[in-house]
Amino acid sequence: MTASFRRRREHDTHDRGDPVTPATPRTQTGTADDTAGIAALLERGRTLAAPLLRSAVARLAPPMDTVAAYHFGWIDAQGRPADGDGGKAVRPALALLSAEAAGAAPETGVPGAVAVELVHNFSLLHDDLMDGDEQRRHRDTVWKVHGPAQAVLVGDALFALAGEVLLELDTAEAARATRRLTLATRRLIDGQAQDISYEHREKVTVAECLEMEGNKTGALLACASSVGAVLGGADDATADALESYGYHLGLAFQAVDDLLGIWGDPAVTGKRTWSDLRQRKKSLPVVAALAGGGPAAGRLGELLAADATKDQAEFEDFSEAEFAARAELIEEAGGREWTSEEARRQHATALAALDGVTGMPDGIRDQFAALADFVVVREG
Amino acid sequence: MTASFRRRREHDTHDRGDPVTPATPRTQTGTADDTAGIAALLERGRTLAAPLLRSAVARLAPPMDTVAAYHFGWIDAQGRPADGDGGKAVRPALALLSAEAAGAAPETGVPGAVAVELVHNFSLLHDDLMDGDEQRRHRDTVWKVHGPAQAVLVGDALFALAGEVLLELDTAEAARATRRLTLATRRLIDGQAQDISYEHREKVTVAECLEMEGNKTGALLACASSVGAVLGGADDATADALESYGYHLGLAFQAVDDLLGIWGDPAVTGKRTWSDLRQRKKSLPVVAALAGGGPAAGRLGELLAADATKDQAEFEDFSEAEFAARAELIEEAGGREWTSEEARRQHATALAALDGVTGMPDGIRDQFAALADFVVVREG
Repeated sequence: MTASFRRRREHDTHDRGDPVTPATPRTQTGTADDTAGIAALLERGRTLAAPLLRSAVARLAPPMDTVAAYHFGWIDAQGRPADGDGGKAVRPALALLSAEAAGAAPETGVPGAVAVELVHNFSLLHDDLMDGDEQRRHRDTVWKVHGPAQAVLVGDALFALAGEVLLELDTAEAARATRRLTLATRRLIDGQAQDISYEHREKVTVAECLEMEGNKTGALLACASSVGAVLGGADDATADALESYGYHLGLAFQAVDDLLGIWGDPAVTGKRTWSDLRQRKKSLPVVAALAGGGPAAGRLGELLAADATKDQAEFEDFSEAEFAARAELIEEAGGREWTSEEARRQHATALAALDGVTGMPDGIRDQFAALADFVVVREG
Repeated sequence: MTASFRRRREHDTHDRGDPVTPATPRTQTGTADDTAGIAALLERGRTLAAPLLRSAVARLAPPMDTVAAYHFGWIDAQGRPADGDGGKAVRPALALLSAEAAGAAPETGVPGAVAVELVHNFSLLHDDLMDGDEQRRHRDTVWKVHGPAQAVLVGDALFALAGEVLLELDTAEAARATRRLTLATRRLIDGQAQDISYEHREKVTVAECLEMEGNKTGALLACASSVGAVLGGADDATADALESYGYHLGLAFQAVDDLLGIWGDPAVTGKRTWSDLRQRKKSLPVVAALAGGGPAAGRLGELLAADATKDQAEFEDFSEAEFAARAELIEEAGGREWTSEEARRQHATALAALDGVTGMPDGIRDQFAALADFVVVREG
């Protein structure tokens, strides 16, 4: 068969291995201590989750165990041990912190951290295949190295493993956590379906774009931010409040990601200039600009309608000036400012949601806030 | 991208829409009443499961709901209502019967029946894509009609829905059932991985073939045969005994399927003559023949080794006489007889496993036995 997945590279809406550089007013108040604190928080998540994650992956029948190990960056394409970039590990850090938010030990969140990481990586394997993305975390994607069948299979297997590591706890809390994770996974899949269908649509509204990003990025961050608390026996109100934090954090992250997709510095992001414009992505700045009306929005709409008739390869090789002109119109029509404001609004909403967590131990809220800054405030 | 899934058609190891014609000694003792009883049992499963199955699928975001409805045969490729062949619905029938085996009402098994059907269809969507199969239940497969991305996505969504319909029961029994289903799903995935890897291997042992078939076909039938009992509060011993029934039933089914894949009557199976031989499938009769040793096995081994060097298209178009010669060597080397015996052994083991179910209400065992005959004894 000749499977025709859509062609798209570099599109990475929900994972980023790039270094993060705090840069906006909020973190200008940050200190070296804050940075060390974040690094320790991420390191704790990574370290505590690693043994269960590795033993879960080791359960897979060959060659899926090897393919998964490659995906996670533990080995290279030739099977040699590697110390690959497995991503920032924000989700495990959030999962452990959420256990502490419910008064439990961070270790209580470990199966949740691992389950969320497994679902996250299941979605990466399948999305890279569907999107035709050839690179992930600066390495060839699984379907490029091991073929599309392995990308499908190993993705499926990681998804199944996620349920397994939670349900083998054999507690009512684990069942609740699995139910929430399953619902989040369905939203993740809905988001990918919407993302694909929007590519073929002429018009996408701001509300539709936000819904898609909420599904694709927000839902699983929401689950990561609450799963430890659920495993620690938190009530639904606490779990919902933590989910709300994670959901809005995801939307804030995504808004920043969409800004960087157009105006990010290639030296920092590792992407080409105007990356999202080259892919004709209907990201937030674009849809917000078009929704704003006015002469700039009108001119932008005409340009994009003409662009839509072009062949992708031809389009990607437009001159810098042509992309710059589109970016300028987006900015002139207010799309850049609206998206920046949206990132700030979502960031604030995320922090406000933490008020819904009653009896959170001292210091935990500050760590949630620090992680929120870390995720949202970055240049790449 | 150009995804290169392996090319293979008609390979359908774990689903068959064909009519089933009881034909061996065992069902020659069957009566018109038996046949009516089976039909009623299957119809009950289909009818009781339908509302929850349809409402679960309706939760999917467009266009996944439509793609899934096409896959289940509820609509045609143009979206018009259809009364398609959704398969024999043996799994739902088993799930409801297993609830009764535990003394519960058949309705207790409905969420289990639906969850198992969802997992089964998730695997069909992904396997058809990986295998390059273009037809399923006499219709074009989803990836042919809606593209490979939808096959991946909708498969993922059905898998997630399976957990959802069980866990929303919010009971300890549902959590146990979900855990068992998750383990069965991983075995299903292991089986598909083994099936793919065996295609590229020169030698596959009988034990490996049985393990693959047990994973790919046995594990989910085992779950179908026990899930209703688990939801009905059965203890682990009862659930395990019912699982054992379903597992061995799956192996018996598969042995018969492998026989039909070589010697089945095209008029009944709807497949070409020597179907599995055309695909160079290392099915049970083949591996058993090779394992038997002797001159026929030796000649068969030489032929198959030479075949392995040929191009697939060229190979498929061998003359009837060339395939007939291979089939004859398989039979001469004892592969056909061994596989027939194996089907009988597995069928008997399945029925014997029912002895492990203590306190099974009157009449339920007979219905399990009748379903076993129905699944195993067939010509297509």
